[in-house]
Amino acid sequence: MKNALYFQSGGVTAVIGATAAALIEAHQRQGQGTLYAAENGLSGLLDAHLVNASALPPAMRQALSQIPGGGLGSGRTLLQAYEDNPEQWQRVRDVLLAHEVGTIYVNGGNGSMDTAAKLVELGQRFNLPLKVIGLPKTIDNDLEGTDTSPGFGSALKYLSVSLMEAARDHCAMATKPSVFILEVMGRHTGWLATCGAVARLPAEMASPLILFPEVVFDPERFVQVVQASFKTHKACICVVSEGIRTADGQFYAQQNTASHYGHEQLGGAGFSVASLLRAQLGVKVHVAVPDYLQRAARHLASATDIAQAEAVAQHAVQLAEQGQSGVMVNIVRDANTPYAWHCDSIPLTDIANRERLFPTAWIDQNAYSISADALAYLQPLIQGEQQQHWHEGLPNYPWVSWPKVCVTS
Amino acid sequence: MKNALYFQSGGVTAVIGATAAALIEAHQRQGQGTLYAAENGLSGLLDAHLVNASALPPAMRQALSQIPGGGLGSGRTLLQAYEDNPEQWQRVRDVLLAHEVGTIYVNGGNGSMDTAAKLVELGQRFNLPLKVIGLPKTIDNDLEGTDTSPGFGSALKYLSVSLMEAARDHCAMATKPSVFILEVMGRHTGWLATCGAVARLPAEMASPLILFPEVVFDPERFVQVVQASFKTHKACICVVSEGIRTADGQFYAQQNTASHYGHEQLGGAGFSVASLLRAQLGVKVHVAVPDYLQRAARHLASATDIAQAEAVAQHAVQLAEQGQSGVMVNIVRDANTPYAWHCDSIPLTDIANRERLFPTAWIDQNAYSISADALAYLQPLIQGEQQQHWHEGLPNYPWVSWPKVCVTS
Repeated sequence: MKNALYFQSGGVTAVIGATAAALIEAHQRQGQGTLYAAENGLSGLLDAHLVNASALPPAMRQALSQIPGGGLGSGRTLLQAYEDNPEQWQRVRDVLLAHEVGTIYVNGGNGSMDTAAKLVELGQRFNLPLKVIGLPKTIDNDLEGTDTSPGFGSALKYLSVSLMEAARDHCAMATKPSVFILEVMGRHTGWLATCGAVARLPAEMASPLILFPEVVFDPERFVQVVQASFKTHKACICVVSEGIRTADGQFYAQQNTASHYGHEQLGGAGFSVASLLRAQLGVKVHVAVPDYLQRAARHLASATDIAQAEAVAQHAVQLAEQGQSGVMVNIVRDANTPYAWHCDSIPLTDIANRERLFPTAWIDQNAYSISADALAYLQPLIQGEQQQHWHEGLPNYPWVSWPKVCVTS
Repeated sequence: MKNALYFQSGGVTAVIGATAAALIEAHQRQGQGTLYAAENGLSGLLDAHLVNASALPPAMRQALSQIPGGGLGSGRTLLQAYEDNPEQWQRVRDVLLAHEVGTIYVNGGNGSMDTAAKLVELGQRFNLPLKVIGLPKTIDNDLEGTDTSPGFGSALKYLSVSLMEAARDHCAMATKPSVFILEVMGRHTGWLATCGAVARLPAEMASPLILFPEVVFDPERFVQVVQASFKTHKACICVVSEGIRTADGQFYAQQNTASHYGHEQLGGAGFSVASLLRAQLGVKVHVAVPDYLQRAARHLASATDIAQAEAVAQHAVQLAEQGQSGVMVNIVRDANTPYAWHCDSIPLTDIANRERLFPTAWIDQNAYSISADALAYLQPLIQGEQQQHWHEGLPNYPWVSWPKVCVTS
């Protein structure tokens, strides 16, 4: 069981390629066995769709480091409970044995860390000398047990820069009261919605109003606040989390919308809020929905985030060398100013399937904004820009031709 | 009538500040009179909301050059026909006389150039020694008489880079047939939709399908083409122009959507196409709507576009010095490879209110793509990146404090 296996699980990020490339390099440096990678997450492991990551040429590894989405393929298949699907467990065992895999690196979020924890059980059940190390990754920043997760800082930086730019456009055009809405991802958590406060807007402009999933959305009160803002500023900016809910617990995205094909989510929360404001206030509303753009914007990646994406991979290899298993690499903050951090580890069972909400203590519900403590936490994560390779006006994102696997054992 | 006046009209761009800053500098260099600027377009002129652009400190002028949206305020008020609104004409005359304005620089698109042409008539009617020079500006690239318009190249670059990044994310996640839709601006023209071909995607990925407003949208045929694409690729990428229409001439954006508040455009064309594909093919569809982000993304501006945004301002001042009037600065292409261009001028009456469509001869209707000739035209416009000033992880977009006007005459 001399070899290792890496796979990505759940939504990808702008810097997941940096983690993959750093893992390949760190694994080569420790000198033991081959690092395989499974395409498209656990399903690639189940189907033995493996590639030889160790054989990736150095130039391609460097390119991989900059490719948004990671160039390997992620997936949403999770390892079920043994009782529910013993065949799935046996299939994993067979592939691990066939490729002499003794270490698995799982790069994902809270659902993926449950799969990582189950892989530990799988090793015990089948008496395999198996080490399992989790590597954090999510733009949502909702992983417990780590100060932040690679992917979040870059998505936050992208959204903050985008909001600064769109806000200036909106402000230049706002000869009448009007609203610009930025709908952001984050599922049930509002970490990404903080871009409304992280964006550095001039004092002459109105502060963006942020709608968090962690706060019950009260349409009536919100309409009043928007209306009041027009007394001082013609341009109103709102950041709307995709996951906001009304007092009845329903997602607001699924309200106010219908289609000829039945009740269906057409536009999401941003468009629902736009409909509300148009109907109640008769104002012009523009809505931007960056969707995948916010988690793929490698050209705007945070250098801090990139450094952490690489560091978690390097630390994961160290943990495996030390014989550790059943842990996820985490990022520990040593200080806000100047920002200092290091990597450590935390038991997978402490974090799997848990969801870290944005702290309500950090939300200023009256101002639809966040506290100074929240800003002090967030700002270090977007620091620094990395020069990219541009070719004929566009970034260089080549296709990764992964070396095929030749099983010789 | 020693002074000059500048105003912006219509939708702003990522590089309109570069035009404004270059105009201020060029006007100072020629040494004659003061350059005023009207806030929020023609309405600022009508309301005498003028600022003293000549007095802008050099450091602020340099910052202005990089501020998306232009930092001055644009507007959509146009000069009406004299017969329809003689009071409006008299008001303009009074403000011009009060500020001794002998030259007007109108920075806008095809509607704004009609206002510029009417300002020429206004000077003649009131016997004012008035020169009027148009400066092109539109992300839509729909101005006649110029090879391109400042703002377009940067928007195209932003959309192309964004599509390259989102496509890699989408591809990494596409374990089943699924669609990513990018909805782009451009009104009735498809210039910006060409990002689907300008984006440099690996040969291993399916080429994006582009829906142009210039081609009647046939939902049935399109569904078939998307379905056929799944035979070879799981990830299908579509670029949807906001202005696509069906055979009956109706905007597709206004179809398939309704709301509790009545028939209302909720999501636009991208969401309508998404509804179609979900209903007909049962596939997962993600939709990104960059909205203002695509015309404000100064951090991704094309260096070529910036150079042209500055050049049209410098040329406008030269034309005024030569005593010309009733013309718009245009950009003339001398060669594709290597790309060469220069500024010239064209009568306002040749271009006002006309709309340059994307040439149907450049559209490959079978492939939902564009021809090699089209690419040869487009690619030079996105070349080059300009270093920005970053401060604490974000670009520097200060508020422009425009010097007040002191009328001493």
